[in-house]
Amino acid sequence: MRALTVQPGSAGSARLEDVPEPDPGGGALLVQGLALGICGTDREIVGGEYGWAPEGHQRLVLGHESLGRVIEAPGDSGFAPGDLVVGIVRHPDPVPCPNCAAGEWDMCRNGRYTEHGIKQRDGFGAERYRLDPAFAVRLDPGLGGLGVLMEPASVLAKAWEHIEAIGRRAVWEPRRVLVTGAGPIGLLAALMGAQRGLEVTVLDRAAEGPKPALARDLGAAYITGDVEEACKSADVIVECTGAAPLVLAAMTNSSPGGIVCLTGVSSGRRKYALDAAALNRDMVLDNDVVFGSVNANRRHYEKAAESLRGADPGWLGRLITRRVPLDRWAEALDHRPDDIKTVIELDS
Amino acid sequence: MRALTVQPGSAGSARLEDVPEPDPGGGALLVQGLALGICGTDREIVGGEYGWAPEGHQRLVLGHESLGRVIEAPGDSGFAPGDLVVGIVRHPDPVPCPNCAAGEWDMCRNGRYTEHGIKQRDGFGAERYRLDPAFAVRLDPGLGGLGVLMEPASVLAKAWEHIEAIGRRAVWEPRRVLVTGAGPIGLLAALMGAQRGLEVTVLDRAAEGPKPALARDLGAAYITGDVEEACKSADVIVECTGAAPLVLAAMTNSSPGGIVCLTGVSSGRRKYALDAAALNRDMVLDNDVVFGSVNANRRHYEKAAESLRGADPGWLGRLITRRVPLDRWAEALDHRPDDIKTVIELDS
Repeated sequence: MRALTVQPGSAGSARLEDVPEPDPGGGALLVQGLALGICGTDREIVGGEYGWAPEGHQRLVLGHESLGRVIEAPGDSGFAPGDLVVGIVRHPDPVPCPNCAAGEWDMCRNGRYTEHGIKQRDGFGAERYRLDPAFAVRLDPGLGGLGVLMEPASVLAKAWEHIEAIGRRAVWEPRRVLVTGAGPIGLLAALMGAQRGLEVTVLDRAAEGPKPALARDLGAAYITGDVEEACKSADVIVECTGAAPLVLAAMTNSSPGGIVCLTGVSSGRRKYALDAAALNRDMVLDNDVVFGSVNANRRHYEKAAESLRGADPGWLGRLITRRVPLDRWAEALDHRPDDIKTVIELDS
Repeated sequence: MRALTVQPGSAGSARLEDVPEPDPGGGALLVQGLALGICGTDREIVGGEYGWAPEGHQRLVLGHESLGRVIEAPGDSGFAPGDLVVGIVRHPDPVPCPNCAAGEWDMCRNGRYTEHGIKQRDGFGAERYRLDPAFAVRLDPGLGGLGVLMEPASVLAKAWEHIEAIGRRAVWEPRRVLVTGAGPIGLLAALMGAQRGLEVTVLDRAAEGPKPALARDLGAAYITGDVEEACKSADVIVECTGAAPLVLAAMTNSSPGGIVCLTGVSSGRRKYALDAAALNRDMVLDNDVVFGSVNANRRHYEKAAESLRGADPGWLGRLITRRVPLDRWAEALDHRPDDIKTVIELDS
């Protein structure tokens, strides 16, 4: 069968190659890969900047945003052939930390987790793969091909769960949320903000293309200017770009009692001049919170499924701006101006 | 009667002066001032760098860390002459924000609060003052003169409440807390960490004087070196100095899932070179939280009282390193090397 593999740390090493059928040790479910979503982390891995191969191997099967259909499932697995499934990305170490032991591997404290397609565990960029039923999520069949949005949605479901949990440290009646970045993560953050009845503003630099209408069709405002002003009037800021100037703007301009959730993974290194005394003083005197959120556990996949079920399928479909057949995988890794989510079709 | 007053914004304007007896409009309780704790905020106000006089006035009675004894109390006030009382510092605006309306004026969202001795409301640096029973806390008589520690303890009681509330966003089994700064705020933070059964490390630059023994007598470790290493092994960091290099060290070195609570108010302005992309990336990938905490509401004063009752009175007494009579008030505003908490005796 064919799989999209890469030698982590080595730019330009990605290729589509023939690999053996998946090892039954990988899990009781045999899955036909249908679609694979591509995100910035995949581009970083293909660029040689991130990623780790499984122990004892040189190459990693790429891909962590999955959608597949069960081909074989044991009777006691809770799954049946034909089920649509998504694989949970992160797995705990066999000797788990207290969070991993409780099923919260997204909050792993010792860093000894593995991640499909990212860290020491083959990913879902293959025609077939195996899943442990404990790390598979069965989808509502009505979701169909939109199920490939489950993994990014799970990341936002966690982010929103944590925003609300942190908010409840005191009386908490948020009205306005600012989302920075109108990529798939930002638009899913905006969707979940709108589903909570909040006034949503989406900020992005794109004045044209599909993003403004996608935001407005959620009932959200869409702006391209003045991030500092936008931060000041928000109760919650969900930062979805990882761009350092936006991160700093959110940290230094949030409103009293404001919560800033960082979800974007920055690339590159560059020093910025920061008045750390002023930042500290403002955070203390305003009771501000800034926190990072990554990954998701099973509970968040379930919340993501609920959110996607509650969304307009037409709107969700517009998030997937390109579908690329597996043998043209390299095109999927380009980032084109109007791209939101690009998906590789594994069964094409 | 005598009161310690200042013209906010005007350095060197503080003086002890004769002022009229307190206006009955200030509250149903007439209180004899016993002691006034001095902190960095008072020094900033006396230095002309902070503070606001009551509307229509030029001068502000200084002081927010109070201890007094009730002289007169209406029968229905819940207080009786002879009661030891502490005044709650912050009052909500007559048109409260949702947090103020719920009694959480410490989390005021619109900034229209007032604060005794700081912002538009006379303080407790007077021989007599009035308190509204709704903003007075009756103390256990056994606490005696240690009651002057109630206000700073309330700030830490709130900080710890919020640390724990934020921690509960996920499975939360903290073991180690690092406290930066061994002033009164740091030592009270360490006390409350020890009372929670945590392994406490206190970091301060003072290698001599009373601080090391005060930390060790809580069962805490006391260190003067390598803040970055100390941060990395802590589940919780309570930053109590407001010093920008320590704030940055805490933000950039906390452990996965770590919670950094900022409680120190920085002074001055200076730019630091910060790799904001690296900070963001670490915060996201590690699920880190950084938050500021200021002030306290009634619930936190009650928690502070519980904490002080549970502490060794001898240890608490050692936090008060100087007691200065009212007519020598200026000496109390000096900061001497071995000072922890300096108190002005109002009835001397």
